[in-house]
Amino acid sequence: MNKKRPLILISNDDGIEAAGILSLAAALDSIADLIVVAPLQEMSAVGHAITMRDPVRARPWPFRGPSGQIKAYAVSGTPADCVKLALDKLVPRTPDLVVSGINHGPNTAVNVIYSGTVSAATEAAILGIPAIAYSYCKWGGGDFESSARIAKDIAVRVLEGGLMPGILLNVNVPDLPLSEIKGCMVTRQARAKWEESFSERLDPFQRPYYWLSGTFVNLDEGETTDIWAVENGWVSITPIQHDLTAHHTLEELRTWSWKDEPAEIERND
Amino acid sequence: MNKKRPLILISNDDGIEAAGILSLAAALDSIADLIVVAPLQEMSAVGHAITMRDPVRARPWPFRGPSGQIKAYAVSGTPADCVKLALDKLVPRTPDLVVSGINHGPNTAVNVIYSGTVSAATEAAILGIPAIAYSYCKWGGGDFESSARIAKDIAVRVLEGGLMPGILLNVNVPDLPLSEIKGCMVTRQARAKWEESFSERLDPFQRPYYWLSGTFVNLDEGETTDIWAVENGWVSITPIQHDLTAHHTLEELRTWSWKDEPAEIERND
Repeated sequence: MNKKRPLILISNDDGIEAAGILSLAAALDSIADLIVVAPLQEMSAVGHAITMRDPVRARPWPFRGPSGQIKAYAVSGTPADCVKLALDKLVPRTPDLVVSGINHGPNTAVNVIYSGTVSAATEAAILGIPAIAYSYCKWGGGDFESSARIAKDIAVRVLEGGLMPGILLNVNVPDLPLSEIKGCMVTRQARAKWEESFSERLDPFQRPYYWLSGTFVNLDEGETTDIWAVENGWVSITPIQHDLTAHHTLEELRTWSWKDEPAEIERND
Repeated sequence: MNKKRPLILISNDDGIEAAGILSLAAALDSIADLIVVAPLQEMSAVGHAITMRDPVRARPWPFRGPSGQIKAYAVSGTPADCVKLALDKLVPRTPDLVVSGINHGPNTAVNVIYSGTVSAATEAAILGIPAIAYSYCKWGGGDFESSARIAKDIAVRVLEGGLMPGILLNVNVPDLPLSEIKGCMVTRQARAKWEESFSERLDPFQRPYYWLSGTFVNLDEGETTDIWAVENGWVSITPIQHDLTAHHTLEELRTWSWKDEPAEIERND
């Protein structure tokens, strides 16, 4: 092929030393030039936070790939910061693909909105760069072999075929050996919620503090959801967008009376 | 009326001492019982971050309303933490409405995903409680009189009529006197992006650091967007959901080949 070797930017939210990002870089090393820009520290559950009140630093980082050093920076910020800074200041050219992960635990259903892994990919999608967020559905991680292999297959597919503008893929890989994974399923986000039950404790000065904890409740019995796919041995691929408008409600809401003459109302109150 | 007085939970991301939340509480004081649970410190741009690696504290706070003290807590966490903790531990009963704001600056277009103000309301929507996020489209705030008045009108409407399950309203009020505001418009999120240009500086030890900065680019010429509404003198009301699935792409993506037998591929590689 005469085509220039593609460039992939890799980030995550578990931090630049996490096993998941090492496995992801190792899997992609043979198909593209790589640059890793990831948080110095673990940044799970930061959602789409960006750092505005403090400056951000990027430190060159000795990141080992299978065929030698991979250019890498550890950033004192969030996953979204990493991708923003990388694309503005650190990449040698615009990447052909931005990937995030492999996350140590699932990012399905409502967890998508809390996920730093997904937000790194979202940053790229907003800027029109194809992006994929990968999660391995085992809390705390483990053996990333099958998820890294699947990550590579899907990355190749997206590098070849592109993605719809503004869309990223949120990929969740079940905790199974590769031979037991049934294949890939395109899914939607399941309807679910967390039922919070903060744990209340007292500090040595008898002042209360709270630890976030709760129970995840799947409210969705559909068989095309991300949760269903993963629970039934499939890789879940959910297309994700950053337009949060509930388009299906616009028509009805436009029939509502919004008291659209507040100046008038003010006088009559 | 025999009906019990409604309860409204109020949060924000500018912090419990911000002018916007004081104005919002003052405007709603006459229509409902209120409880304020808001971050102790400013938490703009934290997106949907939640605090998992540290405990959270809630301190009773002397919050002054027009008719006396309003029950309030200042929380050492994010807006999403505030609403989660409030609903689990601090409210006397399930609120009829959760409101967030009034934000000091717009939350239109792509800014919705970075907004702590919106994420507080999203937490309530996930749990099935009607919710509204309010923003006053003047950076740094200013005179909240018209936005507080409009906030009250919309809150009354939602208390009376409810909202579709899982949906919240993202309200942006233009920086105009009430008499010059044309009314309310139901809108969609405009397509837009930030073009980053981090400001690179050197510290006294000649090490680089970066400040996030950039230019907001509206890519959307539609006349039903949140940006258009606000720029043309209307209050923008955008229904927001937390299902990020790009439903309109599912059909096409299902026609793609995803190499759905990775075990087979592995053997043939």
